[in-house]
Amino acid sequence: MDKTLQTYIDKLNALNFKEMYENDFFLTWEKTPEELEAVFTVADALRYMRENNISTKIFESGLGISLFRDNSTRTRFSFASACNLLGLEVQDLDEGKSQVAHGETVRETANMISFMADVIGIRDDMYIGKGNAYMHEVVDAVTEGHKDGILEQKPTLVNLQCDIDHPTQAMADALHLIHYFGGIENLKGKKVAMTWAYSPSYGKPLSVPQGIVGLMTRLGMDVTLAHPEGYEIMSDVEEVAKKNAAESGGSFIKTNSMAEAFKDADVVYPKSWAPFSAMEERTILYGNGDQEGIDRLEKELLAQNANHKDWECTEELMKTTKDGKALYMHCLPADITGVSCEEGEVEASVFDRYRTELYKEASYKPYIIAAMIFLAKEKDPQATLKALEERGIDRFFTK
Amino acid sequence: MDKTLQTYIDKLNALNFKEMYENDFFLTWEKTPEELEAVFTVADALRYMRENNISTKIFESGLGISLFRDNSTRTRFSFASACNLLGLEVQDLDEGKSQVAHGETVRETANMISFMADVIGIRDDMYIGKGNAYMHEVVDAVTEGHKDGILEQKPTLVNLQCDIDHPTQAMADALHLIHYFGGIENLKGKKVAMTWAYSPSYGKPLSVPQGIVGLMTRLGMDVTLAHPEGYEIMSDVEEVAKKNAAESGGSFIKTNSMAEAFKDADVVYPKSWAPFSAMEERTILYGNGDQEGIDRLEKELLAQNANHKDWECTEELMKTTKDGKALYMHCLPADITGVSCEEGEVEASVFDRYRTELYKEASYKPYIIAAMIFLAKEKDPQATLKALEERGIDRFFTK
Amino acid sequence: MDKTLQTYIDKLNALNFKEMYENDFFLTWEKTPEELEAVFTVADALRYMRENNISTKIFESGLGISLFRDNSTRTRFSFASACNLLGLEVQDLDEGKSQVAHGETVRETANMISFMADVIGIRDDMYIGKGNAYMHEVVDAVTEGHKDGILEQKPTLVNLQCDIDHPTQAMADALHLIHYFGGIENLKGKKVAMTWAYSPSYGKPLSVPQGIVGLMTRLGMDVTLAHPEGYEIMSDVEEVAKKNAAESGGSFIKTNSMAEAFKDADVVYPKSWAPFSAMEERTILYGNGDQEGIDRLEKELLAQNANHKDWECTEELMKTTKDGKALYMHCLPADITGVSCEEGEVEASVFDRYRTELYKEASYKPYIIAAMIFLAKEKDPQATLKALEERGIDRFFTK
Repeated sequence: MDKTLQTYIDKLNALNFKEMYENDFFLTWEKTPEELEAVFTVADALRYMRENNISTKIFESGLGISLFRDNSTRTRFSFASACNLLGLEVQDLDEGKSQVAHGETVRETANMISFMADVIGIRDDMYIGKGNAYMHEVVDAVTEGHKDGILEQKPTLVNLQCDIDHPTQAMADALHLIHYFGGIENLKGKKVAMTWAYSPSYGKPLSVPQGIVGLMTRLGMDVTLAHPEGYEIMSDVEEVAKKNAAESGGSFIKTNSMAEAFKDADVVYPKSWAPFSAMEERTILYGNGDQEGIDRLEKELLAQNANHKDWECTEELMKTTKDGKALYMHCLPADITGVSCEEGEVEASVFDRYRTELYKEASYKPYIIAAMIFLAKEKDPQATLKALEERGIDRFFTK
Repeated sequence: MDKTLQTYIDKLNALNFKEMYENDFFLTWEKTPEELEAVFTVADALRYMRENNISTKIFESGLGISLFRDNSTRTRFSFASACNLLGLEVQDLDEGKSQVAHGETVRETANMISFMADVIGIRDDMYIGKGNAYMHEVVDAVTEGHKDGILEQKPTLVNLQCDIDHPTQAMADALHLIHYFGGIENLKGKKVAMTWAYSPSYGKPLSVPQGIVGLMTRLGMDVTLAHPEGYEIMSDVEEVAKKNAAESGGSFIKTNSMAEAFKDADVVYPKSWAPFSAMEERTILYGNGDQEGIDRLEKELLAQNANHKDWECTEELMKTTKDGKALYMHCLPADITGVSCEEGEVEASVFDRYRTELYKEASYKPYIIAAMIFLAKEKDPQATLKALEERGIDRFFTK
Repeated sequence: MDKTLQTYIDKLNALNFKEMYENDFFLTWEKTPEELEAVFTVADALRYMRENNISTKIFESGLGISLFRDNSTRTRFSFASACNLLGLEVQDLDEGKSQVAHGETVRETANMISFMADVIGIRDDMYIGKGNAYMHEVVDAVTEGHKDGILEQKPTLVNLQCDIDHPTQAMADALHLIHYFGGIENLKGKKVAMTWAYSPSYGKPLSVPQGIVGLMTRLGMDVTLAHPEGYEIMSDVEEVAKKNAAESGGSFIKTNSMAEAFKDADVVYPKSWAPFSAMEERTILYGNGDQEGIDRLEKELLAQNANHKDWECTEELMKTTKDGKALYMHCLPADITGVSCEEGEVEASVFDRYRTELYKEASYKPYIIAAMIFLAKEKDPQATLKALEERGIDRFFTK
């Protein structure tokens, strides 16, 4: 480690990210490129400090509320790690065991859980048109609650996955690429294949592919989105990706051929997802309480998936990538053929070769989340980073 | 904020609350008026300090155990906030996932969960004659455990709602009134209408109305308890209210007319509850494992409730209150007509108008709980408050 | 308390426990006698410091992950207490609510939960040949993850109960004996009766009796293992006990008579467990998903148990022990005749007489766990203990 904390501070000094202060993180494409780079830089700075046993606790007390509408090991632990790194205690709002589901308004609950909350992390990715909207409702409620003198602080929202984007995943993925290719400037012109892959399971969220095409196009990458016909993602996000590419000098191409996407790719990201139109239908069926319809839809989708078992990330396909050595990425857990299922997204030997890189990819997420919080809370992040170093409290006390 | 911490310390210096040290909080009427005022004052002082970014962590480590026999978002988060504010980590004893339900004695469990516990918060409000008694059993067990050298400290009990009282709710409500009317002395002679209201749900605990009449009568208020015939509260608590009123110069009146209660009221608290006699019957049926009896009772009670749909807090009724502007209170969540149910406790427009006040009311609870703990743990609270200010650790670190 | 911290430091200075640094705790018999004594000594030192209000927080942030495959109040709270004492926040990996059960590899999960984890505590005692093996898999995974730069630290594993041993229980029990008999040297030659006892429940794990015979034989005690025919423990552990006894100057005897075991015993530990061969069979049935077989086995075992209702720790049997005053031990909860069941492991009057001692026995567990972590993390524990005393941070802040 020949870097020093000053390196990161210098980098931040060259960026404009004033608008992040007292703000929230919903979608990556609502942030400027300099704001995104500020997140990457603070994430690296926090990791540097943790690795050098320098405390980064900016909260001496305070809560980080997690509200998950879907089970999650990875995101839950990443959020808990990020909160702990900054000094917040995690308090889970489990809708199963709370009264939220019983007719309470979002506004009320949002205030009731926020009395000491500096952060609220929400994962709500199951229903189209709902998750992101719900997050905005929560933010509106606590903003008003703070103005009205109910809350001593306005908690910052971190989108831990919604129906549109999965910003903490996409940003962690991007930070992995930045380190892998030796700098954010080196991503320009690199080809990323975000491709659908076969999975025997049903209804995987669209937020990962959407997040990837929405973010990588901003970093000047050549993004190819590949999927079988009928597996379209949200068209709004495709528009975002096109616009991003035009602005960043990258590109955004769609294809129905996995082979075309893999051809000469520097990075491949093969992953299953449900068709957007099916997810929309499911949302309506769910709204109507039509369980029979949901069961029928599930059967149809599984049958539809089974037509595309050839969408697998094989060694053969990997050979066609740039020098046969594209970086394989996944948000995990992957459906590994012959390991976690009979036929899946990726051949076991491919997955095995990239295991260490995959785990490193995941290891950036706690720091990305912590950086989002840090930038929302600190008016002058550079000064605080410097002050934390000067404060010199050990993360681990030893003699 | 033109107050200073010294204002609160001066106020405490004028009060006698020595007996709170190393003691527990079961029922408000077991405390002297000066002790209650000490809780309000410390709650305000802690809020002042948090608002001014002064750390109030008196525990550098230690656990706050929460034991909930009923689901709760609000109380759970309030307890977690209070513990966090003072430096305790919350550890939930979920009887679902623990072995407590499987024949263990209270004494054993109480000791087993208390090795590092400075506080135990219990909510046990479902069965008449059980909740408060259970809390005493727990306190007796840990007091003995501490004497026997098993526990390094005797954890303080905070009653987070029992079958008799809901002291953290009633105290938070009172602190709201103190701020709303500009001082505890201004509560004298104000009329409070604690009235039953219709709800389509069944078996709501009695501890809120009991807590309100038990506490507000001590503050010199004119308390009217209104409910349909057959919805009596615990007669012991009515006796307490009468005695309190006699001593404080307030009054305690019972009526079967909601209109009479609302007439010229300064404060209205319309809320559903189950009849005490029915709750007693349910406790016996439950004890006998008589599920059929419980189901029958539920049906009977819902039918009985439905006879009183006119017990609703309407705009019309609100107009009859003092200047048409009584403060509307509720412990939340409320059954709002046309919002959370077809017909409920309160008209939507009334609820909406008081929303901010309702959330403020709730916001006092974490500070009330923290104050109860602070007063039980600190031998000289004034000196410690002063020392915390002088210590000058920031709650949130920023440059 | 006439001891000082220096007493404990001096004791540690005389012991060799270098190998504990950056190591894990699986089985007591994998540690040297001096290493075990270091654990006892650090546990006592940490308790001394807590009793004298000296902070022992060596972690300013960081997570302690708990992974329980079986419900547990005691062990869960002991682990939480130990983590809190050292400054770690507990994060539960509940396989029910996580994705772990859904085909993820151990390697992946182990890394995903360990980004900020300094400790992982695992309880996995249900299936023969599985629990301890699983713990090793986890340790191998995080060791590799640390080497590969994925994890900033290698979390320390604490075995909170496996199929073979229950080291935190056995060590806490031993520390209780050390204090009860006034020193580790006084355990030599004392007779311990680890005996089976009747319980109306089924399938209690073998790790407690195995842990006791595996540890007490190392401390020079005369260990008698008594059980009805057919209730054999793991033969490997019997071999360990024999070897230990030969080395320590103690003894290890087996008998099918409870009376023989109790005769002149200084310590009795009567407790139910399932026969090893039945546990093995259950593991196979479970692996095959043979629910019918499991149900049949359970019935058979309960019937088999019922043949041995005379295996109860009675007052009569207690009279036959050394001076009629053997120390009664149990890991709790006990099946108490006439209290928690009709016929059980122990007569109520015996249990009652030893209640305080039983709770004290349990009170050592948090300190044993904390000591295991401390010794794994601190390169020079003596220097750090001294530095913590000099740092002089109060555990509880008061004036």
